[in-house]
Amino acid sequence: MRRHNRTALLRRLHVAGPTTRAALATELGLNRSTIKALVDGLAESGVVEERLPRARSGAGRPSLLVLPQPHAAVVLAVDIRVEQVAIALVGLGGEMLGRNSWNLHGRQREPAEVITHVVESTQVLAADLGYPLIAAGVSVPGVVRRSDGFVHEAPNLQWTNVPLGERLGGALGCPIRVGNDAEIAALAEHLRGAARGSTDAVYVSADVGVGGGVISDGSALRGTAGYVGELGHMVVNPRGRPCYCGSRGCWETEVGELALCRALRLPEGTPRGAVIADLKALRTPERITAVLGDFREFLTVGLVNIVNVFGPELVVLGDLFTALPPSLIAEVGVEVGRRSLVSRAVGGTRVMTSSMGTDVKLIGAAELAFEPVLDMV
Amino acid sequence: MRRHNRTALLRRLHVAGPTTRAALATELGLNRSTIKALVDGLAESGVVEERLPRARSGAGRPSLLVLPQPHAAVVLAVDIRVEQVAIALVGLGGEMLGRNSWNLHGRQREPAEVITHVVESTQVLAADLGYPLIAAGVSVPGVVRRSDGFVHEAPNLQWTNVPLGERLGGALGCPIRVGNDAEIAALAEHLRGAARGSTDAVYVSADVGVGGGVISDGSALRGTAGYVGELGHMVVNPRGRPCYCGSRGCWETEVGELALCRALRLPEGTPRGAVIADLKALRTPERITAVLGDFREFLTVGLVNIVNVFGPELVVLGDLFTALPPSLIAEVGVEVGRRSLVSRAVGGTRVMTSSMGTDVKLIGAAELAFEPVLDMV
Repeated sequence: MRRHNRTALLRRLHVAGPTTRAALATELGLNRSTIKALVDGLAESGVVEERLPRARSGAGRPSLLVLPQPHAAVVLAVDIRVEQVAIALVGLGGEMLGRNSWNLHGRQREPAEVITHVVESTQVLAADLGYPLIAAGVSVPGVVRRSDGFVHEAPNLQWTNVPLGERLGGALGCPIRVGNDAEIAALAEHLRGAARGSTDAVYVSADVGVGGGVISDGSALRGTAGYVGELGHMVVNPRGRPCYCGSRGCWETEVGELALCRALRLPEGTPRGAVIADLKALRTPERITAVLGDFREFLTVGLVNIVNVFGPELVVLGDLFTALPPSLIAEVGVEVGRRSLVSRAVGGTRVMTSSMGTDVKLIGAAELAFEPVLDMV
Repeated sequence: MRRHNRTALLRRLHVAGPTTRAALATELGLNRSTIKALVDGLAESGVVEERLPRARSGAGRPSLLVLPQPHAAVVLAVDIRVEQVAIALVGLGGEMLGRNSWNLHGRQREPAEVITHVVESTQVLAADLGYPLIAAGVSVPGVVRRSDGFVHEAPNLQWTNVPLGERLGGALGCPIRVGNDAEIAALAEHLRGAARGSTDAVYVSADVGVGGGVISDGSALRGTAGYVGELGHMVVNPRGRPCYCGSRGCWETEVGELALCRALRLPEGTPRGAVIADLKALRTPERITAVLGDFREFLTVGLVNIVNVFGPELVVLGDLFTALPPSLIAEVGVEVGRRSLVSRAVGGTRVMTSSMGTDVKLIGAAELAFEPVLDMV
């Protein structure tokens, strides 16, 4: 019981940041003497520190704040993308203590190369920091088995049947969890972003591929054997282009980066920066509709499906979608409400863009790593 | 603890039927003396009975079977459909102890009329039986709020904002739970049908509308505020017919009863029996493709979406879908495997028809009623 309360308290401090003993007692439904014993124990082990808040509020004696100590537990977060790998060491409380990233070209994209580079780069960062890693979390744009981090298919990386969890975990020498990138971003949005406090939310993002993660009744939704769904491979256009997955007119083929390039009349392989610049240059409603009319329609159809299937209160759009004209996002939100009877039933599903920036998957990968180890801190 | 074990034992007997004390001990992970105390207690209160099996197996002394006693707990199950209402009194163990049904025409479909008729018909059945009802479960083809059984929209019944749980529960004078019909059928398939033992399964059925229920990680999936998703309103044909929901080309408009009538060149409103007879008359592959080619394609697209989104091991097709040619179902299953990368990841999602017959929603409604009350028996 004490163990359980200790973990709950650490989780609260880790996710929501410094707070007072009194607030902890209220939020966790524990009495003050229990909180005192827990905080004293954690302070003694150097996991938290208590200190006076910087800004005083009110006239009375200020309450001490309980702060998580970043170095008390450090995890490795890895974000493997099609064109780049980013890693970060993240401390208790979510602070990034060190980071590195590199681009992927040709052979560097092969699993063995990625694993070697991640391990070497981590060793450099960890040596600088001087604290051991207690766990690792990895984001991969593909179909991943949760139990052991086996990557069944990551088509845009051209990976098939890669035992990533086993190999990378073995090389790092710490517990590891591997997740689908969209699922991991959904976790980040749920714990630290727009979906905080939401029990039912969906995160959808467009990178080279399109993926989605679902929070249902407060937890991440998974299918058989821990495989997470592939929202990007919903068919939204049965007469559309063939997709590598064996289907045609998948959401990914209609609203992914390539679809945006087609709409903007940019050649395949245009650098991401140029795609974003062209999106930002669309200013008038007429131009937006002329260039992105079909794109908007297929984005809407996919979102209607997601809202009708999951009944979320909130859909967060990430990555390349955050560069879309705000007026287009607003129109899509209104149209989803008009076309989805489930949106109407739940009182109007909100559609918004992520404000977590490009670190969202790193942040989520760190949380994936922290989840099972907070009770061991 | 004893209470918890007692409920677990009752649930096992209720769902899986008569068994021996020894098997109960193994399945529930309890020792024999605990099982003996529980069974003796239940037998004393008349909730179970112990008796010799009818057929002897082996040479030794036969083990006594523990049997749930139907009259120890009786619930009301109500299946409200667009064209018919069926009710049943169901005893502990799942036996139907009495039933009645009637067709709905015109004004009889109004909520007040349906409620009055259900209450009157229940009183007649309950008086015959002589046992009190301990709970009621109701299946409705619409968007239902789980917490209080409020029906937000049941478009094919033309119901909007009907406080069904409150009104019917009040009139019956017992606890009541109301659910979406496809969700309830999924519950029945999960507890007593093809999806028994499956942690991830989807049930999809076509009546006038098309609906689906999802079992994810062993439990029913729900969205915000307990609203369940509307799989029938996934868009599978963006250039398709307008749907009353505000969207167009919904799965329901492409594979529901009306779509079947169009494919079979039957007028709208053709009696269900005639639709089924025409489906059964399709015998050659050429005729099936000529008549149901488009239908098969949209059935496939919707199932690909469902498999890619939920990653189930099994999809069960119910109601009108069970009248489709078996060769068509088999082809659709193969095609879903070919087009869904998630199906490949989970080792091949099976697609099959329900074998529970037209009572599936009644059976599920009874289970919905039993769920929260087994610990009060």
